[in-house]
Amino acid sequence: MSVDEVLIETDGPFRIITMNRPERRNALSLSHMRALTAAFRRVAETGARGIVLAGNGPVFSAGHDFADLAGADLARTRELLLACRELMDTIHAVPQVVIAQVHGMATAAGCQLVAACDLAVAARNARFAAPGGKGGWFCHTPMVPIARTVGRKRAMEMALTGDAIDAGTALDWGLINRAVPEEELEKATRALLERATQGSPRSKALGKQAMYAQLDRPEADAYTYAIEVMAAASQTPEAQEGMRAFLDKRAPEWPA
Amino acid sequence: MSVDEVLIETDGPFRIITMNRPERRNALSLSHMRALTAAFRRVAETGARGIVLAGNGPVFSAGHDFADLAGADLARTRELLLACRELMDTIHAVPQVVIAQVHGMATAAGCQLVAACDLAVAARNARFAAPGGKGGWFCHTPMVPIARTVGRKRAMEMALTGDAIDAGTALDWGLINRAVPEEELEKATRALLERATQGSPRSKALGKQAMYAQLDRPEADAYTYAIEVMAAASQTPEAQEGMRAFLDKRAPEWPA
Amino acid sequence: MSVDEVLIETDGPFRIITMNRPERRNALSLSHMRALTAAFRRVAETGARGIVLAGNGPVFSAGHDFADLAGADLARTRELLLACRELMDTIHAVPQVVIAQVHGMATAAGCQLVAACDLAVAARNARFAAPGGKGGWFCHTPMVPIARTVGRKRAMEMALTGDAIDAGTALDWGLINRAVPEEELEKATRALLERATQGSPRSKALGKQAMYAQLDRPEADAYTYAIEVMAAASQTPEAQEGMRAFLDKRAPEWPA
Repeated sequence: MSVDEVLIETDGPFRIITMNRPERRNALSLSHMRALTAAFRRVAETGARGIVLAGNGPVFSAGHDFADLAGADLARTRELLLACRELMDTIHAVPQVVIAQVHGMATAAGCQLVAACDLAVAARNARFAAPGGKGGWFCHTPMVPIARTVGRKRAMEMALTGDAIDAGTALDWGLINRAVPEEELEKATRALLERATQGSPRSKALGKQAMYAQLDRPEADAYTYAIEVMAAASQTPEAQEGMRAFLDKRAPEWPA
Repeated sequence: MSVDEVLIETDGPFRIITMNRPERRNALSLSHMRALTAAFRRVAETGARGIVLAGNGPVFSAGHDFADLAGADLARTRELLLACRELMDTIHAVPQVVIAQVHGMATAAGCQLVAACDLAVAARNARFAAPGGKGGWFCHTPMVPIARTVGRKRAMEMALTGDAIDAGTALDWGLINRAVPEEELEKATRALLERATQGSPRSKALGKQAMYAQLDRPEADAYTYAIEVMAAASQTPEAQEGMRAFLDKRAPEWPA
Repeated sequence: MSVDEVLIETDGPFRIITMNRPERRNALSLSHMRALTAAFRRVAETGARGIVLAGNGPVFSAGHDFADLAGADLARTRELLLACRELMDTIHAVPQVVIAQVHGMATAAGCQLVAACDLAVAARNARFAAPGGKGGWFCHTPMVPIARTVGRKRAMEMALTGDAIDAGTALDWGLINRAVPEEELEKATRALLERATQGSPRSKALGKQAMYAQLDRPEADAYTYAIEVMAAASQTPEAQEGMRAFLDKRAPEWPA
């Protein structure tokens, strides 16, 4: 693993994690996925408020690296797919809001990354695809979060045709939150991240993590779970401060 | 509990349940939620065909009442959240179609009410928000039905930013069924409720209740369940009358 | 069962299965559903790349046949509903991509067919309805796949009102993939099916079947399942050929 394949930069209260394998179109080799997972974990332990996931070069990410995979045996391929899942799970698990900043193309596991991030902003000329369906190896795992974001018939269309959709369609289908002119991509990503990182960081971290936990349950179970989390959260200093500040008509001060 | 905090009015075959705490922006205090649940149960036993849930004053509902919650201990907060769930479950359980008539704002548990009603019509200038995300106490339980209505990325945006969406966006995201000029709100709500309450009331009641039961299961289980319900329902007088009237090309007469 | 009630035609690499009971508006009698299931199974064993499901006469399908059902006892009705489910499950299970070509109306179990097909193209003047809600026998089983395609509030509106939605609304809600002028319906259906049947047929068959399996699980389980399927699939000749062709910048040749 080359240290430079993943860049971590600071932008005020945020960290930018950048996939920096432009010559490989940020393909997700085993080492690249492990480096990304490590980067998310490192940033998770800082006081950063939010994380931008971006890519250097012509595209956001081209997905798995066939140079890594052609000829790989079952054990090696499982190892790679488990590392991919670990990256997606880590994005859900870190306490910070994670936003994908998408330009160019997000393909296969690259599109899975977009679906797995909490939020996503894309350049209007960006495109999204799960191209395995038109080849010899179907995008089974990318479709797990993609299908849960865009709905059934649209997921089937993406998976079976392998064709790319444009950013306008991705916005319409709920795969991304904003589609903006390319020159405004960074600014629009930061603007949405600013909105999404207001309030108490501890409350937000619990909120994000509990969202994924409740989304993965039937509604009746989700209620049972969410009620206990919300009741417990009511006893934290940040919840009490938020309510008192609201009642006192003053700005809240969040405990560290 | 003040009796006047919840109004029950008759409008032809419908009942209007109105949250009547305008000075508190119809905040859902423990007593207010219990009064609402009691009102739904009372109306459920009448021959009413459908129920409108509306709010008096500047907004539909501002959600939980911080005056009730600030300083409340864990037991008290759990009690309140369980009462909130009981209200939502009651809306799903009553045999009548329940439609939210939304004006002004529907915030936090107020937005949860909109998501929990069977149908919703809103004034075009109405807004919807889950603002806990920008405070100190995340909207954990409101997001249970909201996320199941608007989809993942949009749910994350509402929950994390806490920002309000307008009625056009709520319509586009599937949180509401109609967005109309404010002066047509009552009329449009009644018009949709008229459409939704055609047919046999007993068949409709079973249909509504079974919908929530099947939606909360994996598709294979949902089929197994729905087949048994539908087969049993075929033996009712209303099912037989509906089929015979259709074949005889006459208007059906529903058994009481 | 009349052999002519279901037609199977060849159109290049595709088979067209046509419901041919125009005088009954392609109502899904027990024998008609069994004939359709048999037709899908027969085509499944051919080398066909894709399947179009179409209807002759004024409409795509009017749903269950009340002439079959009025007066039927519980055992007979269960038998019919189980045959209906078998048809829907068979559409999911066949290795070919199945696309609905919808004109006129798709009503009740006819609308369920549209929701159950992998993809759907409709004429712009086509309409979709679950009319049981305004009669005496609710569309319980049709709503199982319809609700999983259009979302909750929209499913409730269709189910409770029984009103028809037009093709533009069906497209907006994700029930269909394309809405085209009626005179272009066949051409547009073939065009989408061409796109959806590119690549290795064996990989596509596994992909389609695994999609339905993973969609029916919570996300964490879906990942566990999809990883094993995708790892196993990586060892097939078609996966290896696809990767090598990509790396060699040549067109792949799929094993038979």
